[in-house]
Amino acid sequence: MDIPAIAIVGRSGAGKTTLICNLLPYLKTRGYRVATIKHAGHIMTPDVPGKDTDRHARAGADMVLLSAPGTVAVFERLDGELSLDEALARISGVDLILVEGYKKNTLPKVEIYRPAVHGELLCGGDERLLAVVSETDPHLSVPVFAPDDYQGLAEFLLQKLFGRQGSSGKDPHP
Amino acid sequence: MDIPAIAIVGRSGAGKTTLICNLLPYLKTRGYRVATIKHAGHIMTPDVPGKDTDRHARAGADMVLLSAPGTVAVFERLDGELSLDEALARISGVDLILVEGYKKNTLPKVEIYRPAVHGELLCGGDERLLAVVSETDPHLSVPVFAPDDYQGLAEFLLQKLFGRQGSSGKDPHP
Repeated sequence: MDIPAIAIVGRSGAGKTTLICNLLPYLKTRGYRVATIKHAGHIMTPDVPGKDTDRHARAGADMVLLSAPGTVAVFERLDGELSLDEALARISGVDLILVEGYKKNTLPKVEIYRPAVHGELLCGGDERLLAVVSETDPHLSVPVFAPDDYQGLAEFLLQKLFGRQGSSGKDPHP
Repeated sequence: MDIPAIAIVGRSGAGKTTLICNLLPYLKTRGYRVATIKHAGHIMTPDVPGKDTDRHARAGADMVLLSAPGTVAVFERLDGELSLDEALARISGVDLILVEGYKKNTLPKVEIYRPAVHGELLCGGDERLLAVVSETDPHLSVPVFAPDDYQGLAEFLLQKLFGRQGSSGKDPHP
């Protein structure tokens, strides 16, 4: 079965990465294994510039695998770019995926919205919009969470995805 | 069939990364797709510290996939550490793998050796030692290449692995 995935959307600077970095430790304490997918507009290399695996990549390696205690990182050169579906297909062994930076996608989504700055919602007409994160109440038909209420948002999302409520959360693997 | 792999060995500071970074562009011009595997002793994260995917990893993500035009990087948190065999099994779609930093392994290998500094060869009794890179001739039973003769070394390795000689190299896929 596909791993449940949720896109965190919002205009540049809205706080998508910060929200994900707040959700992650909370979801971990609730026992869920979580992956993230991030889309970037620029070419990157797999290590700090100048470090060994970065040098391998810059010297033309088609694939670089960096192994260390507790971690493995794989860098791969592609013709073109992964679609979101291809990226999702590369994730395994987790309960939940949080996606950042894919502007158009068909995933259930959460939009970070600042009415005073952003004008209209990006996903106003999107029926897959599950919730909005906003400092003020924009009076929408979906639940609105304050930016610091990532715990409330996380519980709402877990309930939506896994049909669970409350804080027992003993078994993330149904 | 397993992808041919060669370990580049040598004491710390011997120039392993530099040799790999010299071999890579030459092997690419000869039409080979090449992967590298590097073993590191410390935990690393998948991006420049402070960047978004590094923040995801530090916030507890079990897996982080970073996608950009022309590249994909996947960071994964593990219990323990990949063995070299497990690392090799994760490589696909290339003709050749260069391995750096696994001190003990059963791969065919090239040792970078500075007699004046290093004392004895690391792989003196290893029958899988294919060649040595040295500034001076250490009078060994295997071929010795000067550090700047990576072209000669590359051709020697291609001949050993793929049974080809010379500079025609039109088809790396037998």
